[in-house]
Amino acid sequence: MRPVRVAVDAMGGDYAPQEIVKGAIRAAGSDGIEITLVGPEDAIHRELEKYDIAGVPIHVVNASEVIQEGDSPVAAMREKPDASILVAIRLVKRGEADAVVSIGYTGAVMVAAIEILGKLEGVKRPSAGGLLCRFAPRSVLFDMGPNADCKPRDLLNFAVIGSVAARRILGIDNPTVALLSNGSEEGKGNLLVKKAYQLFKQSHLNFIGNIEGNDIPFGRANVIVCDGFTGNILLKFCEGLGEAVVERVKTALDKRLPEEEIEIVASSLFAWTHAAEEGAPIYGVDGVVVIGHGRSHAPQLASAIQMAKLAVESNLVEELKLELGKVKTEG
Amino acid sequence: MRPVRVAVDAMGGDYAPQEIVKGAIRAAGSDGIEITLVGPEDAIHRELEKYDIAGVPIHVVNASEVIQEGDSPVAAMREKPDASILVAIRLVKRGEADAVVSIGYTGAVMVAAIEILGKLEGVKRPSAGGLLCRFAPRSVLFDMGPNADCKPRDLLNFAVIGSVAARRILGIDNPTVALLSNGSEEGKGNLLVKKAYQLFKQSHLNFIGNIEGNDIPFGRANVIVCDGFTGNILLKFCEGLGEAVVERVKTALDKRLPEEEIEIVASSLFAWTHAAEEGAPIYGVDGVVVIGHGRSHAPQLASAIQMAKLAVESNLVEELKLELGKVKTEG
Repeated sequence: MRPVRVAVDAMGGDYAPQEIVKGAIRAAGSDGIEITLVGPEDAIHRELEKYDIAGVPIHVVNASEVIQEGDSPVAAMREKPDASILVAIRLVKRGEADAVVSIGYTGAVMVAAIEILGKLEGVKRPSAGGLLCRFAPRSVLFDMGPNADCKPRDLLNFAVIGSVAARRILGIDNPTVALLSNGSEEGKGNLLVKKAYQLFKQSHLNFIGNIEGNDIPFGRANVIVCDGFTGNILLKFCEGLGEAVVERVKTALDKRLPEEEIEIVASSLFAWTHAAEEGAPIYGVDGVVVIGHGRSHAPQLASAIQMAKLAVESNLVEELKLELGKVKTEG
Repeated sequence: MRPVRVAVDAMGGDYAPQEIVKGAIRAAGSDGIEITLVGPEDAIHRELEKYDIAGVPIHVVNASEVIQEGDSPVAAMREKPDASILVAIRLVKRGEADAVVSIGYTGAVMVAAIEILGKLEGVKRPSAGGLLCRFAPRSVLFDMGPNADCKPRDLLNFAVIGSVAARRILGIDNPTVALLSNGSEEGKGNLLVKKAYQLFKQSHLNFIGNIEGNDIPFGRANVIVCDGFTGNILLKFCEGLGEAVVERVKTALDKRLPEEEIEIVASSLFAWTHAAEEGAPIYGVDGVVVIGHGRSHAPQLASAIQMAKLAVESNLVEELKLELGKVKTEG
């Protein structure tokens, strides 16, 4: 198989370009990945020179500008045409790369991806989702943010997208789908969920009904569907509660266990409640664009690149087109 | 001060009447509480005989029927007129008790409270709320369930109710109020939150803007406001995540610490993520009705009775009437 060519936005995130270059080198060292770093050539070469990269498939494409958190994403598309994220996504559009990875300003990456690559048919606004917490490693939750206000039909799309993600990213055959609700019985929920329930019942999805908040960490469905407002609050609450628990556990174990052992327990609890750290594709644009957290260091950046590789090799986008097409006539 | 007279539904919950009678005796033993147990006289007296209750202010009022989970709350009001929860609430209506405590079927308690005591002016549907987790012991969240579909105006009512609860139950002067949203800046949120933001800004509340999910465990506002669908999912997610964390911590500490010490850490984490176990008033009915969890044992039942005492002594209902009246003309 030919290597997957990943364009990496070298200028996004809190530790750019140092940690990005480091993470890209790490990923490029593994089998089947070729990296193009996109950003100011000089700065990138200065970083690359710190490493021995003889034989590592890593290239540089110049981009002179950077879109910052705080810029208007739409205005920035016009005002900074040579921004690293735009240059990187154009590589995918022209077929010169198979995927993009960015840990830059999420809003701008989203707008640029929609503008340059286009949306898949039937998608109003691309969706973000994935693992909510590692306690349920076989559950994805959609939508986690972009779609705050939803119609029942949008939830059906999230269910389709989530089913594709569960199959292609997690390798689950025939994933179960549930609506997140305030009660398990049919008829429970807000108006949105009640209406979506009827659509889901008539769909070809492997719909198992409603689940409740306490079911999430136990993975009681492979695909959990909710509006992006609820999903975003849950995701952040999970992270916040994780941090509070870590502090509490550290205090409770202080002087009872050696510091290193406390650190192991604490960092595992942190990781288990911070599943979204490692990057996830945007679902619903016509190309593979993986967004990671702005505070990512090299290991998370390397994970995001591996995620991009998986998305390309599993034909995620083609599968999404197919499945979104199937559901077009349902409901 | 004369004692607070609390009518206790002896027939609700998983361990009725044994644990209820036990919890009621425990509470009646403390200063300033007089208990009336409501339910089948024979069964209650059989339980009471197990204890030495000489001098303990505890009475029994007979009620021959019980409303069960699964009954239609509305139909049950007609079909079981002598149900323990109805008899208990009628004692409050007639001024023969100051408050009711029930750990029975929540839907039925709510319907009965509305029907018998009536709603406060301006309240569409009473609200439930309180601590979401003990990591933030000075934060209440409203609504936690009854109001799944909300208008901006409903959120304003929750903010008023939450402010009264924070003042009267937690003893916080001038509590800060925030909207739970998917971003902290003004303009973030779903349509409901965006509209509510404008109402809140114009109100007399101590409104500090939006907070996000990760702010909740750190108590970044004293009163956190959201629709009851979101609140219910968060509450249950907190409990579920707490259980998952407890399991994980137990596994991680196994053989590294003595079992008793692991149990201390685990049960503290469980308690900190299960704040709603001890009962909370229904807000918005014209009387003090405290609902507890169906799986409560005697200690939780005794806490619920103490909560009822606090609500009565702090004039919670009068204060709610006053504050809901003030906000009637705002927004």
